[in-house]
Amino acid sequence: MSDCIFCKIVNGEIPAAKVYENEHVLAFLDISQVTKGHTLVIPKVHKENVYELTEEVAANLFREVPKLANALKKAYDPIGMNILNNNGEHAGQSVFHYHIHLIPRYGEGDGFGAVWKTHNSEYSPEDLKKMASYIHSTL
Amino acid sequence: MSDCIFCKIVNGEIPAAKVYENEHVLAFLDISQVTKGHTLVIPKVHKENVYELTEEVAANLFREVPKLANALKKAYDPIGMNILNNNGEHAGQSVFHYHIHLIPRYGEGDGFGAVWKTHNSEYSPEDLKKMASYIHSTL
Ligand SMILES: [Zn+2]
Ligand SMILES: [Zn+2]
Repeated sequence: MSDCIFCKIVNGEIPAAKVYENEHVLAFLDISQVTKGHTLVIPKVHKENVYELTEEVAANLFREVPKLANALKKAYDPIGMNILNNNGEHAGQSVFHYHIHLIPRYGEGDGFGAVWKTHNSEYSPEDLKKMASYIHSTL
Repeated sequence: MSDCIFCKIVNGEIPAAKVYENEHVLAFLDISQVTKGHTLVIPKVHKENVYELTEEVAANLFREVPKLANALKKAYDPIGMNILNNNGEHAGQSVFHYHIHLIPRYGEGDGFGAVWKTHNSEYSPEDLKKMASYIHSTL
């Protein structure tokens, strides 16, 4: 897409700190480092979000993630790693070319964290089974 | 692994609200729903974390994610979707069988959120290029 900043990085019109590249995928450091080594992995083809990914694009993309995670681990010895993809403005997406964040973790206050409130009591095992079968019906 | 709760779900020893299943992958509702429809996608083979995934396991797993995300979108019409994988206790991992969370989003206070502090000023473009080339060297 002509006005997409990540397509411009793929095309070489905008520079980036590239970590890895193959036929399908580009990995580069996020210019806004949430933690040290914060890397983005993107498909070279323009897809806005997870809903638009084909099975093949998804498979080709994620195939490269374990090797990149291991490289970050070797490079900076983090104590954990969060792998995150945000879809939609309300979920924190700010560039509308699909991207996966690899966020090495170094401890409390390192820049990243998740708000995680569970709603156990609202759903019985029976409720969950009905929901699962409803979701399955939309596949 | 004999004492792994997710392996027991794969084997049918423990029940789960299954959304989808194929040769490689199982998707089921998280018993602790962070938001409505919160789904886990796991490889059937036991892998503890992203570092242990082979390229093939990673590709086979993520191939199924777009279709599951679209099913959740059709089922509950969320306004966004976060896709998250936590590796290591310090990154929020509590079950040590690799799993990806699909978390449909419905707005502020729905149960999920990300803490996201960037450290732009700490890294110059030159710094980022050096870091990228160092990480590349560990691939
Ligand atoms: Zn693009
Ligand atoms: Zn297991």
